[in-house]
Amino acid sequence: MKKLLLPIALLFCYNGMAQNIDSVDFKRIADQVLTKGKCYDDLRILCKQIGNRISGSSRANKAVEWGEMTLREAGCDRVWLQPVMVPVWHRGEEHLALRYSREGDFIDVPMTSLGNSEGTGDRTVKASILMVGSFEEFEKLSAADIDGKFIFFNYHFRQDFAQTFNAYGDAVKYRWQSPMIVGKKNIAGIIIRSISSGKDDYPHTGSTKYAEGGSKFPIVAIGNETADKLEHACLKGNTAAALRSDCGMRGMAQSYNVIGEIKGSSQPKDYILVGGHLDSWDIGEGAHDDGAGCVQSIEVLRTIKQLGIRPKHSIRAVLFMNEENGLKGGTAYADSALAKKEHHVLALESDAGGFSPRGIETTMSKKQREQFEKYIPLFLPYGVYDFDKEGGGADVSPLKKQNVVIGELLPDSQRYFDVHHTDNDVFETVNHRELKLGAAAMTMLVYLVDQHELLD
Amino acid sequence: MKKLLLPIALLFCYNGMAQNIDSVDFKRIADQVLTKGKCYDDLRILCKQIGNRISGSSRANKAVEWGEMTLREAGCDRVWLQPVMVPVWHRGEEHLALRYSREGDFIDVPMTSLGNSEGTGDRTVKASILMVGSFEEFEKLSAADIDGKFIFFNYHFRQDFAQTFNAYGDAVKYRWQSPMIVGKKNIAGIIIRSISSGKDDYPHTGSTKYAEGGSKFPIVAIGNETADKLEHACLKGNTAAALRSDCGMRGMAQSYNVIGEIKGSSQPKDYILVGGHLDSWDIGEGAHDDGAGCVQSIEVLRTIKQLGIRPKHSIRAVLFMNEENGLKGGTAYADSALAKKEHHVLALESDAGGFSPRGIETTMSKKQREQFEKYIPLFLPYGVYDFDKEGGGADVSPLKKQNVVIGELLPDSQRYFDVHHTDNDVFETVNHRELKLGAAAMTMLVYLVDQHELLD
Repeated sequence: MKKLLLPIALLFCYNGMAQNIDSVDFKRIADQVLTKGKCYDDLRILCKQIGNRISGSSRANKAVEWGEMTLREAGCDRVWLQPVMVPVWHRGEEHLALRYSREGDFIDVPMTSLGNSEGTGDRTVKASILMVGSFEEFEKLSAADIDGKFIFFNYHFRQDFAQTFNAYGDAVKYRWQSPMIVGKKNIAGIIIRSISSGKDDYPHTGSTKYAEGGSKFPIVAIGNETADKLEHACLKGNTAAALRSDCGMRGMAQSYNVIGEIKGSSQPKDYILVGGHLDSWDIGEGAHDDGAGCVQSIEVLRTIKQLGIRPKHSIRAVLFMNEENGLKGGTAYADSALAKKEHHVLALESDAGGFSPRGIETTMSKKQREQFEKYIPLFLPYGVYDFDKEGGGADVSPLKKQNVVIGELLPDSQRYFDVHHTDNDVFETVNHRELKLGAAAMTMLVYLVDQHELLD
Repeated sequence: MKKLLLPIALLFCYNGMAQNIDSVDFKRIADQVLTKGKCYDDLRILCKQIGNRISGSSRANKAVEWGEMTLREAGCDRVWLQPVMVPVWHRGEEHLALRYSREGDFIDVPMTSLGNSEGTGDRTVKASILMVGSFEEFEKLSAADIDGKFIFFNYHFRQDFAQTFNAYGDAVKYRWQSPMIVGKKNIAGIIIRSISSGKDDYPHTGSTKYAEGGSKFPIVAIGNETADKLEHACLKGNTAAALRSDCGMRGMAQSYNVIGEIKGSSQPKDYILVGGHLDSWDIGEGAHDDGAGCVQSIEVLRTIKQLGIRPKHSIRAVLFMNEENGLKGGTAYADSALAKKEHHVLALESDAGGFSPRGIETTMSKKQREQFEKYIPLFLPYGVYDFDKEGGGADVSPLKKQNVVIGELLPDSQRYFDVHHTDNDVFETVNHRELKLGAAAMTMLVYLVDQHELLD
């Protein structure tokens, strides 16, 4: 909170004419994106003509072609593919039926296997269900308590966090770590309550991880409404599940990051990067996660070109592959940058949904923040006010080791975990103006960092 | 912008312990609303069991009963109905067909008559279309130019405004004033491009007004896609419209404001009011406009009761009738307050959609703002930061004459004018967390004004 003081105080020290020019250029950027931007149309094509695009899939290959073509159309000086080997996870068929009482029938429920999880082989696994509220509770159970059962990790997404990313951070361990906590113990499988803020029954997928040398039981998620019903039934006892799923890892495949560049006029070997990830989960359309970040990043370069801004630094848009289940694209990009001694001054990602922007988190140093703060008031007319948070996107995080300032767009978070990793993450849930305002905010930050050499 | 400086500076002067208590109470309020609030469930009932509810309709009567019952359930000490006579506008059947070229057929298009407009009587009106871009352009036309034609006011909603209420303010005169500009001239009718930010074809209704003694031609709106097509065709010429509509005014009817009250512990005759309007247009479900404001206002009182807060002032939730086409409810409430010498210290409305809150506009004096500013940092963890704007809701505006500080919740505005006054303003477009955060922000302001006697 206290940080809000500084920007305004410093504004008075900041040259009035320079500020006015920046303010006019911010308006030009916003006008261009809001009235002539194409990111919303680009997103429609990505979502509706290609659809979801998990790493290694044929649709991911199509998305690579789309990215290359769209970056060219946006006016990049150069567009190329950066090879990345990616893990391939295959879902196949999957069915979960629950029995809510001793006398009840097994009833099919909406479910999704978690990414990276193994299936049931060529059979249906039937077993009783043991509900557990937390890892602490699980640790207290004996081997006999859990032997051969489905463990239902029933941790509720906390609605009391005002910012949902905090609630996600609190709950996501039950998706990611549950198999590690179970380790080598003998269970039929894990059922988790989805990491979901939704008042609905959409199951949410996402990565999970087995313990080294641990058992490879299946792991699936159910939606909040089914979880509520199962919770209620478990309190009475005699619940059971019947699961059949074909999912599992299928080796590695060749894929690519897609990179577009506008060459810098005075410092062509210093780079400012904007990016999102091109892969998505294999359900829904990957609209917010992260088609939005891809089309916004492309829009940043298009806007610079359309407005005739001549950047000092080289500006790159990177559409990363494999954020969801491996981060191979982000890692490959950072490795390449290191090997080629490419100096990045900023790497900004958009991977928190295409909602109205509220701020940008970064890893700027204290000194850099002090230098930046006088510019914050320029963002306020666009509803972008929060620059206090420390952080950056997953795909750009491997660049941190090279002392690159990384960042991430902070959109309004209220709706994200309703649709995240679900069949409902579709184009129709993205608003054209919210998406565009995010692209405008990213362009504004890139413009400032470039023109004022803020992070050189 | 400059205003952001003051709150933080003043925070340091503000008693640390008092601030801490407020901060804890803010968290209690947010937790209560986010985890136990019922406003979203209330809105589902209002939208799905009653639906839209234009003044004087049977559904508006049902909404009055619903409001009374829901305020009682929320724990009000007293709930009553305040009689209001309201104008009744009836839509009836309506059809618009357009012919886009001399040789073309008449094709039915999505359309909506504007509120308060008259119909075509017992016949279909057929005439050629004259496209006009602005009032200035219209004023230059001769009587012969327009005689007997449909005037197509084709003013585009400006997407370049970062805040859509500014774009609405810019464009809405083409809905409200067009008949006044045409006055007594002889035309077949007016077709307007909807006051819409949408990239779709939903027509948007809303109030319009005839000139005193002017002609009573019909006035209808078409959606953006149809308007684009018609614009394109008009540039080539030979367009025509065929309109039939039964709408018109149907006298006055008895209706009610619904009022719930928690009696103040130490200043029961000083009132803090929260409110929204219960009537809506007769299409869609009036979810954002303004079911959201009604259920949020009820939630404010429910939260105070549930948390056991004993307000010093009497706190009222008012569900106003007839905001959309007459403001009779707001006027009747202010008249009654004046007659009864009820002293209101604050009248806060929510009527800008159930989206994520960003701020609250008020009519506080400079001195009151200075006093209030030290409390602003308490709102920042909830994403509510903008208290600079001057303004207040329509229904509470008649109280201004009595020197009451009025205000209005400022939610994120990006999506509002996609759905405003359309068939698409339905429950499904409201997010549960966004709606609740708005109710929490309203409760926080009421709490502060009450407990610290900020506006007494």
